[in-house]
Amino acid sequence: MILCDIGNTNATFCNDGVISKMKLDEFKEYKTNDKIYYICVNDETKNRLKDSKNFIDLEPYFELDTIYQGLGVDRIAVCHSIKDGVIVDAGSAITVDVMMNNKHLGGYILPGIFHMLKAYENISPRLKLPINSQIALDALPQRTTDAVSYGIVKPIVTLISDIARDKNVYFTGGDGQFLSKFFKNAIYDKNLVFRSMQNLIKQKRI
Amino acid sequence: MILCDIGNTNATFCNDGVISKMKLDEFKEYKTNDKIYYICVNDETKNRLKDSKNFIDLEPYFELDTIYQGLGVDRIAVCHSIKDGVIVDAGSAITVDVMMNNKHLGGYILPGIFHMLKAYENISPRLKLPINSQIALDALPQRTTDAVSYGIVKPIVTLISDIARDKNVYFTGGDGQFLSKFFKNAIYDKNLVFRSMQNLIKQKRI
Repeated sequence: MILCDIGNTNATFCNDGVISKMKLDEFKEYKTNDKIYYICVNDETKNRLKDSKNFIDLEPYFELDTIYQGLGVDRIAVCHSIKDGVIVDAGSAITVDVMMNNKHLGGYILPGIFHMLKAYENISPRLKLPINSQIALDALPQRTTDAVSYGIVKPIVTLISDIARDKNVYFTGGDGQFLSKFFKNAIYDKNLVFRSMQNLIKQKRI
Repeated sequence: MILCDIGNTNATFCNDGVISKMKLDEFKEYKTNDKIYYICVNDETKNRLKDSKNFIDLEPYFELDTIYQGLGVDRIAVCHSIKDGVIVDAGSAITVDVMMNNKHLGGYILPGIFHMLKAYENISPRLKLPINSQIALDALPQRTTDAVSYGIVKPIVTLISDIARDKNVYFTGGDGQFLSKFFKNAIYDKNLVFRSMQNLIKQKRI
């Protein structure tokens, strides 16, 4: 079974458990006769795929109990497989969603680490700095490189901790593993979205 | 007395209490015979001004008790006039510094609101959204426009609250007034940097 998660930067494939990535530009030219189950948050790509016979959009099959208006299908998918907990998908954007008894209670969006570094770089060449992955979050920074890394990591960790309390925090996405290290009750699952898509296909016999 | 605070976007003048702004590009062409006391964080502009006779750089005169390496003169200036408290300069970047008994304890940098909105916009056209200035920070967002505004305002407010506790929080900069509304113990002073520059000139008889 081939699954595909199409974001704003990459299309990520899961072919019987084997993961591969394709840049969105490359994916535009991609032709196949294989049956591909997909979800897509990129409007342009979604439009292009909707008339394709072998690309099957899973979005209409997901049902999530929520009052959130316009929740992206990527967030719906990762929330769909978690009954209770906080779900953090840390990619281009970091989406944070809360599930309780299979109900989606709401969520918020932070820019991903790459786009945060770019934001600093756009403010001043002095702030074009790499991230210090060992940044201490319990002491005030004493140099600019730490002031920036602290400014990126501390808000993410503080905000998630605030809403998680004793709940499990499920991390996925490119920066999920890195961020999960700042939490005691963290579960990192890089294939959360594919697990969810696969479950849906079985449940609904698509 | 003419004071000038040169950032990465604007040069801001204070001419006997009257404030005016000039874009940095425009400031490049600016000629005057008036005596101008300035501070500058933009390396290119600083280099250009250093041979000018009537432009007097105040940076060498500021003395701040700190172990922070490479603290920008804009941050030094605003901290210089506060004995105890948290100082938030909310412009292109949001700098947050802590003073205790005239000692600088450290600080960190967040991207300013404008650059945060740009970061979201760069992630996806779906995230090109205006800020909701009335955003509720005590409830989980239920739509994407709130998920973004919450993602911008909540980290700023939470991080500052965490280090401020009972201390006064002094706000300055373009977004200082807006952000000060989220705090009980906030003091907004749009001319904090000029007040500091003026005090220094008097103290050191420059």
